[in-house]
Amino acid sequence: MAYLNSNYLKLKSGYLFPEIARRVSAFASQYPEKAKRLIRCGIGDVTEPLPEAARNAMLRAVQDMGQHSTFRGYGPEQGYEFLRSKIAEFDYRSRGISIADDEIFVSDGSKCDCANILDIFSHTNCIAVMDPVYPVYVDTNVMAGHTGPADASGAYYGLLYLPCLPENHFVPSTPNHPVDLIYLCFPNNPTGAVASLAQLQKWVDFALANDSIILYDAAYEAFIRDPALPHSIYEIPGATKCAIEFRSFSKNAGFTGVRCAYTVVPKTLTARDESGNPHPLHPLWARRFSTKFNGVSYITQRAAEALYSDEGRQQIAALIDHYMGNADILRKALLASGLLVYGGENAPYLWVKCPTGLTSWQTFDLLLNEAQIVVTPGSGFGAAGEGFFRVSAFNSRQNAIEAASRLANFRW
Amino acid sequence: MAYLNSNYLKLKSGYLFPEIARRVSAFASQYPEKAKRLIRCGIGDVTEPLPEAARNAMLRAVQDMGQHSTFRGYGPEQGYEFLRSKIAEFDYRSRGISIADDEIFVSDGSKCDCANILDIFSHTNCIAVMDPVYPVYVDTNVMAGHTGPADASGAYYGLLYLPCLPENHFVPSTPNHPVDLIYLCFPNNPTGAVASLAQLQKWVDFALANDSIILYDAAYEAFIRDPALPHSIYEIPGATKCAIEFRSFSKNAGFTGVRCAYTVVPKTLTARDESGNPHPLHPLWARRFSTKFNGVSYITQRAAEALYSDEGRQQIAALIDHYMGNADILRKALLASGLLVYGGENAPYLWVKCPTGLTSWQTFDLLLNEAQIVVTPGSGFGAAGEGFFRVSAFNSRQNAIEAASRLANFRW
Repeated sequence: MAYLNSNYLKLKSGYLFPEIARRVSAFASQYPEKAKRLIRCGIGDVTEPLPEAARNAMLRAVQDMGQHSTFRGYGPEQGYEFLRSKIAEFDYRSRGISIADDEIFVSDGSKCDCANILDIFSHTNCIAVMDPVYPVYVDTNVMAGHTGPADASGAYYGLLYLPCLPENHFVPSTPNHPVDLIYLCFPNNPTGAVASLAQLQKWVDFALANDSIILYDAAYEAFIRDPALPHSIYEIPGATKCAIEFRSFSKNAGFTGVRCAYTVVPKTLTARDESGNPHPLHPLWARRFSTKFNGVSYITQRAAEALYSDEGRQQIAALIDHYMGNADILRKALLASGLLVYGGENAPYLWVKCPTGLTSWQTFDLLLNEAQIVVTPGSGFGAAGEGFFRVSAFNSRQNAIEAASRLANFRW
Repeated sequence: MAYLNSNYLKLKSGYLFPEIARRVSAFASQYPEKAKRLIRCGIGDVTEPLPEAARNAMLRAVQDMGQHSTFRGYGPEQGYEFLRSKIAEFDYRSRGISIADDEIFVSDGSKCDCANILDIFSHTNCIAVMDPVYPVYVDTNVMAGHTGPADASGAYYGLLYLPCLPENHFVPSTPNHPVDLIYLCFPNNPTGAVASLAQLQKWVDFALANDSIILYDAAYEAFIRDPALPHSIYEIPGATKCAIEFRSFSKNAGFTGVRCAYTVVPKTLTARDESGNPHPLHPLWARRFSTKFNGVSYITQRAAEALYSDEGRQQIAALIDHYMGNADILRKALLASGLLVYGGENAPYLWVKCPTGLTSWQTFDLLLNEAQIVVTPGSGFGAAGEGFFRVSAFNSRQNAIEAASRLANFRW
């Protein structure tokens, strides 16, 4: 008699984005005319065309696949050397961080990597997440059986939630007791907060002192404008002994529909077996890749490689400028309307305090009904997100300007 | 203190294909002149260029990504409707099998699917695998903690191995006690064996009687030439209540470097929770996709869609004819050399009995040293593979003819 993984039954069915879609759809049915004005500032999906350098590389790679002499079948599961070396050189070594080519693992997305990384860890670890938080970190731990059921606020028993609030500038302090795995994400989704070198140093010191592993999600590092801010956890001394870093081409190069990302697992990183003996994690992650994955499309890897050309880097810079221009326009409008606004200066997300007395979903409904603007309710990202909403800067300039105009004049 | 998944430490380090690569490399160092003659009939990777229909579709899709009006960001995690509907219609409904579009889950590879499917099942299930077997089924169960350590033959305690031998035509009988999850693969990798409707009916009856789930790997179905043989487990009455099917574009359309496959999870399929209550598996697999995966590249899905055009289907048929032509040439040569040969008539693999007195690895070394032909030692696929070797038909025609010539004249 086959048994299912009962941990899946603990997952809340009303996932954030389907509920948003349901409310938007109901609004559109009731007010079809007003619905024509809808502007979506909800999901963090890119809107601008793929960089020309990436497209040209893909066109060439498709031609490669049409000829015997250049055809490629199975590639190395961990990624082609032509891409791993570019990543290690441009994103790390040229910035003074010692990362070897084979410490880079090319994948089809950071969501997969953040989820799959749990495979190589024991079920006994104590796990800390920021709150609010990208739901994937939490849900994958629920699925793996690392939690109890959820309480009324949606928090799962067994996880340590680290509240991120205006009081701590949305950067949590280290806990006063050991934890084993710590998810950190900077620039943060959803709050748009960034962490300084000093703040990350405290986390690295904590991890080294407690033999913890930091799972560092840097998917939005390209949006950092302040030169004093770290782009990588490995800018912190000691981090290669306690941190795994996740990076993605989704948001900087508009690859959400193309699918390419990477994970850095330094060879100096270890975790303990049941007897307490340390083992390097690099061979475990490499083995996971070889056994459960067959590598990213050759064509996609050529596209990612092209992002590191002069042309590709200029085109990425232009995309970042575009989205950060939107963020600036939206930020000023929200401030003009009298709201408290966080983030949006080194991240494509604005985290906005709801008007006094309104919950996240009440604010969502108000903006949908009265301004036809779709935002993301902060409570969907965790209990500490209640009373906030997220505005995404991923949009056309025209939409950003129109949304800003409506927001600036909104009567709360 | 972070703990690792100690189950990974049970995995044997000497994985089959790295060991083959090591021996080939040692030979090439010692005999550089002879090494120029090497013909690889080992790994089952395609050699022929990608079908033109797929390439043209990708070129168009890359252009789509360059324009605002046709740009695609995140797609549906489970696959675009344009592809799911083609798969369900051409591979199932047009063949009289009732499968709905949304029972198709488009992924980046059957290896991933076969591995990831374990996520939705409990760790308490009793698991049966064919022997010899595609190593991924076994290794992913080891990683998930479903086994003890390996014995001297490489078999892991806790798995039920179903020996596949000439005596049963490499199609195992149902066991005389219940098992919960059953991996079946036809046409088989590595033996090239096929299962008849009657043989599969016995397995479906067994699964229905025991509330088991069959994990049916049909990655090689396109190579079936005998019209009496089933291409899908769902040709068997009752199978939509007890089977998940895995299909791939890797081998029929040469997508090993492009990465696209799919899994069929019928909505009628259930498994039990801890209290013994049945739940449909479809929502669990859908949830896994939404949470741990972000869909296959839009460009790749357009390529897969094009395989279902008239042009695409003709080009696939030509590829299959090519590889099965190789299989025929190699089969005749091996028979001419006096060996016992199985498979290769409805599958791209030949499964060959080693000459009397030789083990799989001894035969491997002999063919490498004396004929410069690389095969795959059968023992690498499991204990019951000892005394056999696998010859792959994935090659250029020129290489197949040359390998056949050397094999036919080989003095064992």
